[in-house]
Amino acid sequence: MAEPLKVALAGLGTVGGGVIRLIDANRALIERRAGRPIEIVAVSARDRGKDRGVDISRFQWVDDMTALGELSGADVVVELIGGSDGPALTLARNTLKSGKAFVTANKAMIAHHGVDLARLADEKDIPLKFEAAVAGGIPVIKGLREGAAANEIMRVYGILNGTCNYILTTMEKDGRDFAEVLAEAQALGYAESDPSFDIDGVDAAHKLSILASLAFGSELDFAGVAATGIRHVIAADIFEAAQLGFRVRLVGVAEANGGGLFQRVHPCLVPISHPLAHVAGSLNAVVAEGNFVGRLFFQGAGAGDGPTASAVVADLIDVARNEYGPAFAMPVASLAQPGRADAGERTGRCYIRLVVEDRTGVLAEIATAMRDAAVSIESFIQRGVTEDGDAVIALVTHECPERNVADALQRLSGSTSLIGAPMLMHILDF
Amino acid sequence: MAEPLKVALAGLGTVGGGVIRLIDANRALIERRAGRPIEIVAVSARDRGKDRGVDISRFQWVDDMTALGELSGADVVVELIGGSDGPALTLARNTLKSGKAFVTANKAMIAHHGVDLARLADEKDIPLKFEAAVAGGIPVIKGLREGAAANEIMRVYGILNGTCNYILTTMEKDGRDFAEVLAEAQALGYAESDPSFDIDGVDAAHKLSILASLAFGSELDFAGVAATGIRHVIAADIFEAAQLGFRVRLVGVAEANGGGLFQRVHPCLVPISHPLAHVAGSLNAVVAEGNFVGRLFFQGAGAGDGPTASAVVADLIDVARNEYGPAFAMPVASLAQPGRADAGERTGRCYIRLVVEDRTGVLAEIATAMRDAAVSIESFIQRGVTEDGDAVIALVTHECPERNVADALQRLSGSTSLIGAPMLMHILDF
Repeated sequence: MAEPLKVALAGLGTVGGGVIRLIDANRALIERRAGRPIEIVAVSARDRGKDRGVDISRFQWVDDMTALGELSGADVVVELIGGSDGPALTLARNTLKSGKAFVTANKAMIAHHGVDLARLADEKDIPLKFEAAVAGGIPVIKGLREGAAANEIMRVYGILNGTCNYILTTMEKDGRDFAEVLAEAQALGYAESDPSFDIDGVDAAHKLSILASLAFGSELDFAGVAATGIRHVIAADIFEAAQLGFRVRLVGVAEANGGGLFQRVHPCLVPISHPLAHVAGSLNAVVAEGNFVGRLFFQGAGAGDGPTASAVVADLIDVARNEYGPAFAMPVASLAQPGRADAGERTGRCYIRLVVEDRTGVLAEIATAMRDAAVSIESFIQRGVTEDGDAVIALVTHECPERNVADALQRLSGSTSLIGAPMLMHILDF
Repeated sequence: MAEPLKVALAGLGTVGGGVIRLIDANRALIERRAGRPIEIVAVSARDRGKDRGVDISRFQWVDDMTALGELSGADVVVELIGGSDGPALTLARNTLKSGKAFVTANKAMIAHHGVDLARLADEKDIPLKFEAAVAGGIPVIKGLREGAAANEIMRVYGILNGTCNYILTTMEKDGRDFAEVLAEAQALGYAESDPSFDIDGVDAAHKLSILASLAFGSELDFAGVAATGIRHVIAADIFEAAQLGFRVRLVGVAEANGGGLFQRVHPCLVPISHPLAHVAGSLNAVVAEGNFVGRLFFQGAGAGDGPTASAVVADLIDVARNEYGPAFAMPVASLAQPGRADAGERTGRCYIRLVVEDRTGVLAEIATAMRDAAVSIESFIQRGVTEDGDAVIALVTHECPERNVADALQRLSGSTSLIGAPMLMHILDF
């Protein structure tokens, strides 16, 4: 049997423990599939003594996580520390500069520094792999990089954050409001105590920017992702959406659009007939539209120690098999510089929800603003009044340029009839 | 730029034309992604003169399809002739023996001869690839071989035949019977004039046996697939299933079951909450259940020139990138010899539909047979009478061993109360 692939593992949190357990549990079949054993030889983490439920005494312990990159006797470093910068990034650079393969689940670091790291990997023709960084256990990096490689990709989009999907689908199921469901999710450990990376769409934006680079062959542009989270979705939005035949999902969308790249994370109304409408709980799903393959749909667990470990070890198996190439499907030198598309030129239907004072003239004010901005209304619902005596108005526009909708909302801003800001959600009509 | 990958293409039907069109249309991006151009240099087919809507005069023409395998100047042969034996198989052997890479969309040939061909490829360490052989454009071979490679796979199953899915979902939508929808599908070109490979489950069985080999690391055992098609599904089955919360789909299932391999293609009742229930029209979908990743779900176009060409060229890109390994994820020498599981030991719920004479005592006869076979009934519907004056009885059993259900049907066989054979469909409770 060939030489084992020797792995140094940095970061022993949930996912790190999962990787150790997976390699222990599936050792024999991994060896058959990879053509050689995969063995963890050294580990490092912030705290050596913490009980992790796995025996780490059999591995070499290294105090300095960033030193694993130069460890003699390791062929590949797995980074599960997290954080876009700091020790994770130092370790990544050290590893690649010393000519070792590097496998990571770190979406923030890849979103911010992926191109620089890929350049280091290109120089030495060594693997840089990050399947676990996007959509957990779903092999969607591989799906885009290899499975759909023959296609011009027109659009890639999906549900990329399990916490938000759990919250939205629980709101949908129970008819409850955001804050209440978030608090419960935090108590259950499904949401972080500081949930802003998840619920404000930052985590999904990290992942979307990685998918976009792979799909469109362009350099990562995380700063070009417009991200809106789910904080302002209320139970009434989900109720009205359902009445109209939609479900609310946080969707990341990237499109090659007139030479520029369009990237947005936002809560959307998804038609009930669309596969994303049936993605429930903490699942993730990704759709890629290719010019020959049509619509490809991938779904699975987007987080958790098992699924994430599955993706990390899949990367290790690719490395062990010597089946790898440039991180972003082509050398960095071949990646295009993405321009940014003007979102205002996109057309589509929108859902707009307003909470208004229940008095004469409000309806006319809204209708006038829409008319003056050339936004035509497809459906309009005003339903009862809230406990505070306010009315909820939900409307869906006909297809029109996004700039017109922005103009309409601008015309309404500052209106004394409105209670709080209007909620705008795009309708996923593709 | 590196040397082009030179391709010889055998078979110029729909898919062959699609491959030529795809390589023409996406030439520049394929070159960026593959790291070198992919060029068709020679073609062969049964009939040189046929108008195919693509210009083949720019390629070398070879009269003898099987001779492409020895063609100097070609690095890889793409086989799109079809048929499990005959010229396709001769070409495959010639190609691999002469040390060239071989890419095929031929499910029948891989199901019957895949292991022998993989042995030839192993000997010379050359690529043998067949992504297009299963589920058209969906990268599910790659998903199992690589994406889920870290997992012990407990079960792989899916909708593997677009023609059957089109027929079943059209019956569902329109409330029509099988024969009528089949005739229409034939007229529209969605079904072959001899549709038996599709509607009797043979095509799905070919694909299932390939998936099973990849999932379980065992030699292909096409003969071990029990296949039942959709000929005997009637409109009433679909109607009753819907009343009970199910949809009828032709599902191929492979499980590693007590040391033996269980492989079956059969029309099933799929709960409405299951992702397979939402796979409509000619789409395909595959689910793989891994011990760490959980349930992975892949969906897309299972046939057609564009999707199939997408998969063929994805294989070519892997070859061009030199990112390949053993065809069935491990050398043939490492594949296990699959035993066959005893289906009778499986337990599950079943749907049974009987058409019976509308007279006293029939119900007692059925209930007695069920009782004597230790089959307990969860729900039972007898609905009206047919135009012929017969009654339709649909029942769902509680979970029980399959051998008990077989016993119950055996007890009813030969009963003068029954009009035609009972219809048995398993319920997909996973």
